This record gives sequence, C-alpha cells and structure tokens, in this order.
Amino acid sequence: MKTHTKYLKIHTENEKEIINITRAVEAAVSESGVKEGIVLVNSMHITSSVFINDEESGLKRDFMKWLETLAPKGDYDHHRTGETNADAHLKRTIMGREVVVAITEGKLDFGPWEQIFYGEFDGQRDKRVLIKVIGE
Amino acid sequence: MKTHTKYLKIHTENEKEIINITRAVEAAVSESGVKEGIVLVNSMHITSSVFINDEESGLKRDFMKWLETLAPKGDYDHHRTGETNADAHLKRTIMGREVVVAITEGKLDFGPWEQIFYGEFDGQRDKRVLIKVIGE
Amino acid sequence: MKTHTKYLKIHTENEKEIINITRAVEAAVSESGVKEGIVLVNSMHITSSVFINDEESGLKRDFMKWLETLAPKGDYDHHRTGETNADAHLKRTIMGREVVVAITEGKLDFGPWEQIFYGEFDGQRDKRVLIKVIGE
Repeated sequence: MKTHTKYLKIHTENEKEIINITRAVEAAVSESGVKEGIVLVNSMHITSSVFINDEESGLKRDFMKWLETLAPKGDYDHHRTGETNADAHLKRTIMGREVVVAITEGKLDFGPWEQIFYGEFDGQRDKRVLIKVIGE
Repeated sequence: MKTHTKYLKIHTENEKEIINITRAVEAAVSESGVKEGIVLVNSMHITSSVFINDEESGLKRDFMKWLETLAPKGDYDHHRTGETNADAHLKRTIMGREVVVAITEGKLDFGPWEQIFYGEFDGQRDKRVLIKVIGE
Repeated sequence: MKTHTKYLKIHTENEKEIINITRAVEAAVSESGVKEGIVLVNSMHITSSVFINDEESGLKRDFMKWLETLAPKGDYDHHRTGETNADAHLKRTIMGREVVVAITEGKLDFGPWEQIFYGEFDGQRDKRVLIKVIGE
C-alpha cells in the first residue's frame, strides 16, 4: 500500500472566491505512483470548502449568489467572540468540506464535467488544502 | 490490498427521480472479495447526487419539494451558456456527490435504516455512478 | 494494510444537540496503529450527522437556528407513516452524514480549528457512530 500527502497553499485576493484545483490534485496523484485507490481532498479550514462541479464562470457566480440567500451575512451568536464570519461557516457547510475521488489506472476517475474546486468564503488569508492519496 | 471498480448505468424516465442503488453497491462489494475496507459511491455527473437516507416514498417526495424551495428553477447566470439546469447543480450540492461506506466482515456496515440512493435532478439522459471498493 | 472498526454509542439528553467527538476518533486512530491512511466517521442513523467545524458554543446555536430556517419542523408527506421527524432527515442532509479525515504520522491531519462533531436532530434515543480506520 502506498500513501502520499500534499498540502496546497491558497491565499485568495477576494473574501469570496472559487478556484479550480483539479490540476494540483492530478499532480499529487501522479507523484504518488498510485494506480488504483482513492484521493481525499479537503479544506483544512472551517470557513472554506472543497467540492466538485462544473468549470463555468456563470455557475460560479450563481453559487455565490445562492449561498448569500441561504446563509446571509448578518448578526450571529458566533460574533460575540469578536468574529464576524459566521455566515462563512454556514456557506462552507452547504458546499462541503471534502471530496473523495477514485483513482483508476493512475488517473482521477471522473465523469465528463467533473472538476475539483476550492471555495473560499472568508479569504485574504493563508489557507491550506490537504491532498491524501492511498492505494497501490 | 484489493481494489474493485464498477460503473452503474442509470437513465431515469423522469427529469427528477430518486433511485435506491443499495443492492448494486452490495453486489460490487461482494464481487470485490474485500472483507475489511471502504467503498466510495459517487455520481459521475454534476447535476445528480449519491446520498444515504431512508427508503420511504413520502420522504422522497419531501426531499424533492424541499429542494425546489431551497434551489428553485429560475433564471441563473449559468443559463447564458444555453443550459437551463443551474437549479440541478444547486440541488445536487445540497444532497451531495458521494458517500463513503465502511465494509466490515464483507458487508456494508450500516445502521438499521441506511440505504444508498441516486438522486437525479436533470435526467432522461445516460448517466453513471462509480463504485470503488478498497480494502483487503 | 491495517483496518480498525469502532462503534461509538451516543444518547443525547435533548432532541437536538451537537457533541464534540474528536477525542473518541483520536483514540480509535491511536488504537488502530495506523500511521498513514484515512479514517471514516459516520452517523449510522438517518436523522443525525457527523461534520467538521469549530468548537464554539455561539456557532453551535447558530447552526441549530439556521437549520430551523432551512429545514423547519412542519407537515411533511413522511408523517403519513406515523413519523414526525421529516425535518430531522432534512437537517441531517444539510450537515452531512460522514467525514473522511487523513491520518499522517499517526495523527488526525487537521487544520488549526478543525474538530469533529456529532449533530443530533431527533435524539433522546440510543444512536451509534461508526469509526473505520484504514491504512498502514
């Protein structure tokens, strides 16, 4: 059994941003030498997400507008700690923390449109994504 | 370490549908010979989901009605591409892309009511579900 | 390859409750002897969740209030079976069934604030969480 661990550094220019990280995950899988297995990709932070959807700029705007309706900025109990980002915790919950992707014949075993994204909801700071490959 | 990969073909009659795929996942686990490990089950498409809940027809209707309130059909930026299914991308996000299930003593290690479902939100086309078993 | 399976018993005092289970998952990883791999942690029930977020009491209240707005108690088709907990099935869907966490050098490979929680939405009954460790 082989394992491979990689940390991807991310620092967004904007507070909220969606970044395609598919190439970085593919690179980690290639480095691992794993031909059959899985790769876990997760945000290491609790106000950002890793998710799979379509690379389309309109859809990315739709996601951000939609998240604002479901988990709006506002007054939350969490803010009594001095934080002001409770909405980012909720937005991340909708989008998810992690994805697990199959590796088949050394490649991400993806459908025609699947791409991996990092979704930032409280950015402009150093963040990390964890990539863990296991298999053989 | 053993791995086993299987693709499940799905083509729904309706645009939106929830299909119980537990038996197909059990069959893949049995074929794999894996006694201890995990199985990843994911939609290979970005407008459908794999999720775990209860096999109850009323609850399935509740899920569909609820998703229509949280992620309604409507006018989205994504539709400038000619697509008309942005709501299906959002509905799938709520329900999730994938599940990871433990395999113990050769079987899905499930609680009393857990069943695996494929949730289609933009159907009437050929789709696939990926089943990846890893373990020993 | 090593695997380790553990069941965590949970019985909440309240109908809805969020419980930090990070220590129990760390203990299971330690017992497993796995140094590099992953751990799956999932609710074995369909009205409760396992998720990762921040240990902060205000945020936990925010989650519960927010879930009540997105998935309120009410009249659902599921209730024709005699059940009255359809809202708990929906709340659990928002929060998620499971998490998969990387194990690196024998420890949960977490960011600075990540903690694992059990979220109960239909409690006051015996429930179980499954912890499955795989790796080497």
